[in-house]
Amino acid sequence: MIAYGKPVIGVIGASRPSGEGYELARAVGRNIAERGGIVVCGGLGGVMEAACRGAKEGGGLTIGILPGQDAAEANRYVDVPIVTGMGYARNIIIVRTAQAIVALDGSFGTLSELAHALQMAKPLFAVGCRIAPPEAPQVEDPEEAVARAFAACADR
Amino acid sequence: MIAYGKPVIGVIGASRPSGEGYELARAVGRNIAERGGIVVCGGLGGVMEAACRGAKEGGGLTIGILPGQDAAEANRYVDVPIVTGMGYARNIIIVRTAQAIVALDGSFGTLSELAHALQMAKPLFAVGCRIAPPEAPQVEDPEEAVARAFAACADR
Amino acid sequence: MIAYGKPVIGVIGASRPSGEGYELARAVGRNIAERGGIVVCGGLGGVMEAACRGAKEGGGLTIGILPGQDAAEANRYVDVPIVTGMGYARNIIIVRTAQAIVALDGSFGTLSELAHALQMAKPLFAVGCRIAPPEAPQVEDPEEAVARAFAACADR
Amino acid sequence: MIAYGKPVIGVIGASRPSGEGYELARAVGRNIAERGGIVVCGGLGGVMEAACRGAKEGGGLTIGILPGQDAAEANRYVDVPIVTGMGYARNIIIVRTAQAIVALDGSFGTLSELAHALQMAKPLFAVGCRIAPPEAPQVEDPEEAVARAFAACADR
Repeated sequence: MIAYGKPVIGVIGASRPSGEGYELARAVGRNIAERGGIVVCGGLGGVMEAACRGAKEGGGLTIGILPGQDAAEANRYVDVPIVTGMGYARNIIIVRTAQAIVALDGSFGTLSELAHALQMAKPLFAVGCRIAPPEAPQVEDPEEAVARAFAACADR
Repeated sequence: MIAYGKPVIGVIGASRPSGEGYELARAVGRNIAERGGIVVCGGLGGVMEAACRGAKEGGGLTIGILPGQDAAEANRYVDVPIVTGMGYARNIIIVRTAQAIVALDGSFGTLSELAHALQMAKPLFAVGCRIAPPEAPQVEDPEEAVARAFAACADR
Repeated sequence: MIAYGKPVIGVIGASRPSGEGYELARAVGRNIAERGGIVVCGGLGGVMEAACRGAKEGGGLTIGILPGQDAAEANRYVDVPIVTGMGYARNIIIVRTAQAIVALDGSFGTLSELAHALQMAKPLFAVGCRIAPPEAPQVEDPEEAVARAFAACADR
Repeated sequence: MIAYGKPVIGVIGASRPSGEGYELARAVGRNIAERGGIVVCGGLGGVMEAACRGAKEGGGLTIGILPGQDAAEANRYVDVPIVTGMGYARNIIIVRTAQAIVALDGSFGTLSELAHALQMAKPLFAVGCRIAPPEAPQVEDPEEAVARAFAACADR
């Protein structure tokens, strides 16, 4: 169970996505795992659950950075729940922890994460993310987003 | 020096504004003070300095919620520096502490604050803030923004 | 209402103090205000309430750094509630914000603040604080503690 | 690489331990890994490094919750660096994330973690930890501490 050196990729997006958005996130998670990466996300439902689920299907490791005070709020596909008790301030920890980020569609919570990622000049790739500012590069599909995220990690 | 019960109004915007942006923020700060409000902001330069400066010119109290570990990083118009040592996580504290927010133009840090304000359904009024999402109501001038912010506080 | 440059003194201690502990905190708060200082504390009940109450009786300004997400949890003597939403992480903000600290008796929350104050080499004076580590200087009475806290601020 | 459901055990202690303290932490880490647990710690040097090193020798997974803004500050035995950028506030995240804690000797940073663990009623076992308050149970050796930490996780 040696994880050291593996790319840590953040997945952000809606807590209540469409069915299509959920499957997109699941594909992103699976792709990250199949390439040997670790998924980090907010650990709750929706896109966060789908990304972790896909990562587990791909044989990967998942980290959920939780806003509340109880590990039990993590979705069932989170391997390691990080319990911050700091509410939305945990959004920043997700962004800092990720070496690169794949953004799916979402709402204001996702927007705050996009803003922090842009503020920190963190590699960021958006797939069907309508809320993303124009500075965030949009890519066509989940595989391409993950491939570019891994390439960005390797460049560092 | 009785502050209890006074509206606490957040002012957010660029750390390197245009000259016009600086004067807009100063007018906002002065207006808040003249109406008896307290200015809360990020405590550093640019819009933050201008809002505090205007508030002091208007005889008000200013609170600067700082990202770093040293009160000395506050601009000279901050009455009470709150020293968080938590980096950008202090953006959330500004938004939570403000009863209503006036947003001037800014960049990704400001965008993260706008996102959190919208996420928390905090009353928010934008003046010349090009980065604001469409959900943030735009108002014409600083006086109107401050008037509406005070009205929103009174409604709560 | 010019506060800039005033010493900001932290008061820490039990949320459920004895009657004597409550009056001690109230005297500390009054002393800080009478000397022209600002009281910063955790903003809730017990020692926090007493310190704010004393400070208002002495004509001072009070800042309550709250753990929760709602300004309404502040005690009624808090002039400016800082709403962190970060739980116990707010203890660190109290310690960082204070230029010097007066510690009254308390429990594990107080101990965490004492530990952070010692870790940051923040001037710290304990009055009847049985939980304080031996490195925290014990002083006889509230007036002496406040006098030494002000002297420590002036030295910086 | 299925980690879900594994006990997450916190290891806290000095960043500059004695040689004996370093080996004690290494034995604790190895024991946690051999029993199938995950080590969570502050991710830096001293006891943190030793616990991660021992865990990797035992074939386990290690999580380092870092105070700074750069994953590169993690010791080389950290598998997953969690980058908080929140300074000492990360101490609380370590305590919240751990299901049980083994405390080795340390200084004020360790004391703040002990205080938070006691405040949260988190299972806590001290081995040769002279700074621990009397409420923290002292155990004889690392194996016993780890055994009791695992038993406490199972009870929950």
